[in-house]
Amino acid sequence: MSEPVAPRRCADAASGLGRELDGMLVVSIEQAVAAPYCGLLLADAGARVIKVERPGGDFARGYDRLAAGQSAYFVWLNGGKQSVVLDLDRPDDFALLDAMLVRADIFLHNLAPGALERRGLTGERLRRTNPGLVTCEITGYGRDGPYAAMKAYDLLVQAETGLCAVTGTGEAPARVGVSICDIATGQTAFSAILRALLLRGRTGQGSDLSIAMFDVLADWMNVPLLVQRHQGRPPARVGVAHATLAPYGLYAAADGEDILIAVQNEREWVALATRVLGRPDLATDPRFSDNSARVANRTALAIEIEAVFGRHRRDALIALLTEAGIACARLNTVADLADHPQLRARTVSAGPVEIDLAALPVGTGAHLGRVPDLDEHGAAIRAEFAAAAALG
Amino acid sequence: MSEPVAPRRCADAASGLGRELDGMLVVSIEQAVAAPYCGLLLADAGARVIKVERPGGDFARGYDRLAAGQSAYFVWLNGGKQSVVLDLDRPDDFALLDAMLVRADIFLHNLAPGALERRGLTGERLRRTNPGLVTCEITGYGRDGPYAAMKAYDLLVQAETGLCAVTGTGEAPARVGVSICDIATGQTAFSAILRALLLRGRTGQGSDLSIAMFDVLADWMNVPLLVQRHQGRPPARVGVAHATLAPYGLYAAADGEDILIAVQNEREWVALATRVLGRPDLATDPRFSDNSARVANRTALAIEIEAVFGRHRRDALIALLTEAGIACARLNTVADLADHPQLRARTVSAGPVEIDLAALPVGTGAHLGRVPDLDEHGAAIRAEFAAAAALG
Repeated sequence: MSEPVAPRRCADAASGLGRELDGMLVVSIEQAVAAPYCGLLLADAGARVIKVERPGGDFARGYDRLAAGQSAYFVWLNGGKQSVVLDLDRPDDFALLDAMLVRADIFLHNLAPGALERRGLTGERLRRTNPGLVTCEITGYGRDGPYAAMKAYDLLVQAETGLCAVTGTGEAPARVGVSICDIATGQTAFSAILRALLLRGRTGQGSDLSIAMFDVLADWMNVPLLVQRHQGRPPARVGVAHATLAPYGLYAAADGEDILIAVQNEREWVALATRVLGRPDLATDPRFSDNSARVANRTALAIEIEAVFGRHRRDALIALLTEAGIACARLNTVADLADHPQLRARTVSAGPVEIDLAALPVGTGAHLGRVPDLDEHGAAIRAEFAAAAALG
Repeated sequence: MSEPVAPRRCADAASGLGRELDGMLVVSIEQAVAAPYCGLLLADAGARVIKVERPGGDFARGYDRLAAGQSAYFVWLNGGKQSVVLDLDRPDDFALLDAMLVRADIFLHNLAPGALERRGLTGERLRRTNPGLVTCEITGYGRDGPYAAMKAYDLLVQAETGLCAVTGTGEAPARVGVSICDIATGQTAFSAILRALLLRGRTGQGSDLSIAMFDVLADWMNVPLLVQRHQGRPPARVGVAHATLAPYGLYAAADGEDILIAVQNEREWVALATRVLGRPDLATDPRFSDNSARVANRTALAIEIEAVFGRHRRDALIALLTEAGIACARLNTVADLADHPQLRARTVSAGPVEIDLAALPVGTGAHLGRVPDLDEHGAAIRAEFAAAAALG
């Protein structure tokens, strides 16, 4: 199970996805993570995505130089797009944007709250000349309410929604180690845009979408929220264990290797006791006879489990557990992920180098081969839309 | 900023979303979280969602009784669906499912790998009689590869992808405190189905979709993965701080209250030093003159910041920081989220009670009023499809 094998084929290579937005034009004034991730998914679905960058470029270009001299964030998020630099304070650049939006199907942005409204670029005004246009803004906290003007970055919204409070160890809260709030919001914006396109197919009309990072995570927090409201306390932070199921968590195998197991019902517990531990007596032991008893006697249970697990190497245990129908996994490092036999790859070119990434979970990623240099398509895009801009 | 106000209106109430899947039939053999979340989003988009449950029901019905006697997970995930219990080992129930699938637009499931194939319910076979049918399976690790047969639960895939390894404190890794992998996979499956419906609008043909939880999180892990591959080490786990930006993290205000701030560039640092701290000298202090220097002198920087922050109450500081354009947030508890003035609500009825939830981030949730009892719509659905089943 631990030897790398040839990367799996893309699950949906046969689905035909990747052409469903063929011919559609996306204009995206995007920076950092949330809107660029949405733009990436639109490109993967076959749309032409024009990434409009401020003079100096999307600041994610300068986040780091960690990936062969390129920005890890930027390389991940921007394959398959076209880049044009526009200074919206210049009338000619503003006219060019306006001309692009007359022909666009989708207008995406994650500028600061109010930045486009001040310039008159509201969905309502744009749909007067382009009725089918789907506009989508990404904000931190939405258009209304006392937080509407607050700046929002990924960590701040993780903290504000209480996600950090339920993540971490018994001792201390923690952030999720990836930009979960940005990514989830980009994914949500993508599905909202697809919904609006399906609606447009029925009505001919575009939609006015506004996706808030806070709203996305608040929905994901519904279980802790319900526990808090109805029990008067939040769920416990328990590291990599489970607050209310046992055995469920990390156990030690031979040679200091850890293994995660998850037992979800009595049938699985009996299978673990009899077929893996070779201890049918444990299945009927009153200390372990149902889940509540096992949670109450968690430590004694761990001692019994590790007495057996400690005699096996992890790979042998995984085979044994899998055979018995017990869910298990390794607590992998990032290095383990890099060599994981189940990892699917996509490759992009960025500047002078080629960089391997984990593939998108849907589609082929076939359109996403090139990460654009700053303003790489500027001259061509200006030429393409200049006549229309002059007329405008 | 801390007084609760009337909940905000739904951001997209004016978008018209919620009708885009009107008239569409979803048959969903779903349990736990990933597929039910996808089904919830399909219902929110206007589809009729028939939730097919095993005898005894979706086991999420029994996860807990924490929300007014109802299962918190089940209440959150199942509003607006219809429930029918089918025992697929009974020929008449199997025939009923088959009859439903002839009329369905979407067939979703997250059964164990191979469970439907063994019964001949492949997308290929179903599309022979219903060419437009979109089939979507949710798996742990995909159809192919050495892990294809492995069981997968949320925590296990968090661990297997290395997400736990980058989440937590310096001392210990941690799971994300919500079922992020299930939720993200449900969201991804939803967008994949919408893509397939857009493609069907062009071609008339359905698609064969297979979404793997591992693939979804592997994509989200791209930044740690790139750092690992190109730097030979993973990003550090740093609790609620940031590994490579400063000041960025938790600082103490008066009365022991913490506040999170995030400074992303030099302009913001100068604004913090001059307008919030009243210390223009710090902006030019060589210890703090650029981000690298501030990261290297993180502790000295925190002492300077807290010397000023410690004289202010948190709400006053938030006002001051917001005025100066510095992003900030509170490290909220789940109780704080429950009273958060920016929280939008939706209400469902479940059994005999009404339960308030955080709203979905898109759409109105207007269809999602009732969480079905087990087999609540069984008789009606059997009557509706019985004639077709008898003919089949």
